[in-house]
This record gives sequence, structure tokens and C-alpha cells, in this order.
Amino acid sequence: MWIYLNDGFVKKEDARVSVFDHGFLYGDGVYETLRAYGGRIFMLAQHLARLQRSARLIGLELPISEKDWPPLLGEAIQRNRLDDGYLRITVSRGEGEIGLDPALCRRPTVVILAMPFKPYPGHLFQEGVHLAIVPVRRNLVAALSPQIKSLNFLNNILAKREAAKAGAFDGLMLNAEGHLTECTASNLFFVQAGRLCTPSVDCGILDGITREVVMRLAREQSLPVEEGRYSADRLRQAEECFLTNTTMEIMPVRELDGKPIGSGRPGPVTLTLRNLFQSNLARFL
Amino acid sequence: MWIYLNDGFVKKEDARVSVFDHGFLYGDGVYETLRAYGGRIFMLAQHLARLQRSARLIGLELPISEKDWPPLLGEAIQRNRLDDGYLRITVSRGEGEIGLDPALCRRPTVVILAMPFKPYPGHLFQEGVHLAIVPVRRNLVAALSPQIKSLNFLNNILAKREAAKAGAFDGLMLNAEGHLTECTASNLFFVQAGRLCTPSVDCGILDGITREVVMRLAREQSLPVEEGRYSADRLRQAEECFLTNTTMEIMPVRELDGKPIGSGRPGPVTLTLRNLFQSNLARFL
Repeated sequence: MWIYLNDGFVKKEDARVSVFDHGFLYGDGVYETLRAYGGRIFMLAQHLARLQRSARLIGLELPISEKDWPPLLGEAIQRNRLDDGYLRITVSRGEGEIGLDPALCRRPTVVILAMPFKPYPGHLFQEGVHLAIVPVRRNLVAALSPQIKSLNFLNNILAKREAAKAGAFDGLMLNAEGHLTECTASNLFFVQAGRLCTPSVDCGILDGITREVVMRLAREQSLPVEEGRYSADRLRQAEECFLTNTTMEIMPVRELDGKPIGSGRPGPVTLTLRNLFQSNLARFL
Repeated sequence: MWIYLNDGFVKKEDARVSVFDHGFLYGDGVYETLRAYGGRIFMLAQHLARLQRSARLIGLELPISEKDWPPLLGEAIQRNRLDDGYLRITVSRGEGEIGLDPALCRRPTVVILAMPFKPYPGHLFQEGVHLAIVPVRRNLVAALSPQIKSLNFLNNILAKREAAKAGAFDGLMLNAEGHLTECTASNLFFVQAGRLCTPSVDCGILDGITREVVMRLAREQSLPVEEGRYSADRLRQAEECFLTNTTMEIMPVRELDGKPIGSGRPGPVTLTLRNLFQSNLARFL
């Protein structure tokens, strides 16, 4: 595995950062996860724009310009001979003395990981997964907005642990007001009375790129799409439910807290959107 | 500088962790900051107990037992020939594949930094510092409790940036309900009508060890101590204000948002506690 680190590609065993890197000391940094299909990256411009936004929101200047990312990511794919690939860009504040002040770090650390994409087991897509509403609440927007795709993941990790305790595939977090937000690394959708519903960004979620694509595909089919503030009860009454993110695309949800959602099987809207996603994929590469 | 990394002491340039360390990828880890006076660590048992608690709250088993920390920290002090020293213990989840699940990591990464203590400039203690109430709210207790001393520091870093913009020494964060909490790396105290007041732990703060010591010293002097939920207005009406943490001990606050607190100079209670802290130091080593 070749890993890009700061100014060149190194072997995995040499891809190391100082213990003074503020990414390690404080989680001070941002990242993006990308997926390559046949060597081409899904929604690349959108991922790069979001990386730029995350960086701006924490006051971090990316050391690589917009036009230099694509060839660099292409090289990461080629060097690792990837066809279907998983990539992760990490940009941390860099090495610096102890202290919260970003000015202590002279130069951000850039890491690009590129590895073969490992698909989720097929039976999950066929049967749907089980979610649990976890006690952990989603980060407060005014404390650390979930729109910043940052290296601060303990909120999600705590939720993931609660989900594991409950025997669920993942944990669904509510916000401070008790509204549905998202799972630990995916956005939530549900279908009710012919409408595709998803928590709005102001509930405190990451505005996922696959989420955007799914809303677009639904609208193209004249399926009404609604972004709003929803209680867990709304979801319990839903006919279908699914999750979206870059790696799982569209993952059907079968159960919430041990009780079936709708028929307890992936529903027709979910399956239609999944087929549309795959048949339209080339538009997004 | 000799740095302890996992199973031995290495030079600073060799103190590096994998880019797959979940500390770097996700800020998945905990830490403690300690101070040595004349080679002896302040409130060591309390710091170790809190490290243990933080680790437990994120489900991390410390790879070093309670009795093995003191000799290891002692060795860090000796190897670096420290008299007055600053130490930082970091324990991250360790190296593992991409993914939030802690089970992906086989072994936590342990880092002990030990370096000469750099005191704050003396004029800050003489004049007091200037705080700004920042727009950034403190992390929600139910999302990521401030009682977990974790590597997720972006909430504080965002607050620090806001404080810098306001030209203040540090930023004071409110919680979601608008109550006073703490600054980016210190606890808040104020004096009003002969009472020493400090936000209670359930406001969403770290229960600082220096905070505990200060409350104890005050009570020993029969100074009434009150932990509660306070608005910013209460602080504006205060006669004195100060901050506490391991490195600054007791730091007088002169101004809040550009307006003097009390006389605008370090007050008598602040100075008395500061003197008591120093004259009682030996009890806590």
C-alpha cells in the first residue's frame, strides 16, 4: 500500500506522524472519504468542495489547491492499482507545540489513503439492517457542527458502542431537542405516505453527498422529497427506511429498536432508488 | 527530549504514530496534563484516577496498571532532567483499520511527553487576563461529556479562535441552556457577596483537579463555596473572577468582554487563594 504523506508517497510502515501532530493531540483536522468505481471517483468535485468547507470552518488552509487534488488522488489510485477503491483524505493542523492555538503549527499534515473497496456483505442489502436509537445525542450545532467533517469522532464512537451493546448494526442519534439526526456515519431516510423524508441539515447532520444524489434521483422520478424535523415516532410509523453514505450507497433498514419498520423487509421505494443509483452511477463519476 | 512511546523511551524525532492510529483518524483517546514541582507531580493519584475514568467512559482499557504509572512518569522526569516539568499522558485507541469500531484496534498507543514547565508571563498574574464570552457553546453532556478528558478538542479550538478574534486571553463558553461553563482549558470561579462561586459539574465542565484544590483551600478558610448554574449576568456583577488549571494554577481575570470585573484588578480573595495555593503546595505533591 502506497500512502501519500505531505509531499510524497510512502509505504504503509513509513506513514507515520509526530506525536506532536495536532491531529493526534486534539483531533484538529478534517477529512473526506471517497469511493472510486472502475478507477473513477464518485462526486469528486463535491467531496473536494466539502473538504474545503470543513477546513474553512476550523480556520485551516488546505496546503493543496483545488486543481492539484484530482491528479494526486489519481496517482494514489494508480500506484495502488485500484479499480473499485476506498480513499480517505485527512488534513490535520500539523506538528506543533502543545497548545490549542492553531498558529503553533506551521504546516498542515496531508494524508491520502487509497485501498481496495471492501463491500458490505450482500445479505445486509437483501435483508436490511437493524438500528437502535442510542442515548448518545448528536453534537450540538453551536458546539461543533456535524457539517464540519472533522477528526473529532468520539460522539459517533460513543453512539457506535451503544449500538453494539444493543446488538444493532448502527446507532441512530437524536439531537438535543429530541429530533432524528443521523447514524454514526450515514444519513437517514424514511418513506411515509408516498413521501421520501430525511432530517434537515439544521437538525445537526452532515449534508451527505450520497444524500444529495438520492434526493436528486427521487425528485427526477417525481417522488416528493421532504427535509424536516422528525420525532422517533414518525420513523416508527414509516413504511420504509434506509441509510446513505459513500461506501454503503443505499442500505435498507429492517428494524428499529427490535421492531420491524413497515413490512420488515427492504421496501419498493428503497429498492427503486437503489436500482436508480446504480443505473445512474456513470453520471456522478 | 525523551518521549515514552508504547514500550520504551525514544527521541522526539522517532516519536511517531501510524496514520492508522485511531487517535489520529478519529481523536479516539484520552489524556492528562500533569505538572511537576521540583520533580514531584502535583495531585498524581487524582490525575491517574481521572485518566482511568476518562478511559472507562470511552470503553478503553489502559494498558498500564495504576501502580506502573508513577515509576514510568518518574523515569520520564529523570530522563529529561526536569525539575519543574510539564507532562502529558496520551492514550489512544491504537492502530487499526478504518472504521469507528474500537475492536479494530488491538493495542492502545501510550505516549508520555515530559518537558520543562514554561510559566505564563508574570504580568498576566499581576494584571489579570481578559475573557470573552464566545458564540461557541460547550459540548453537550449527552453528546460528549466534558468530563471525558478526550482527544476531541475542536469544540475548545473553535472557542479559542473566537477568543483570539475578540482580542481576549481566552474564551468562556456557555452551555446549551446559556449557563456559564468553563474556558477552553480552565475552570471558572467568581466571587460575589463573600461567596466563591463556580459552575457545577452538571453544567458540562471538566471537574478540574486544581478546581478541587481551590475549593478545599477556600473551605478550610471558612469561605463559603457554591457550585451552581449561573448566567453571564451573574459573572458581570461579580467582584472578582479567576481561572484555574494545572499549568496556570490560579489566574486572575480582569475583564469580561472589554468591561472590568469588580475593580478591574486581581481582587483580595483571588490573591489570598493564590498565596494559599503556593504555601500549601507541598501537601499536594
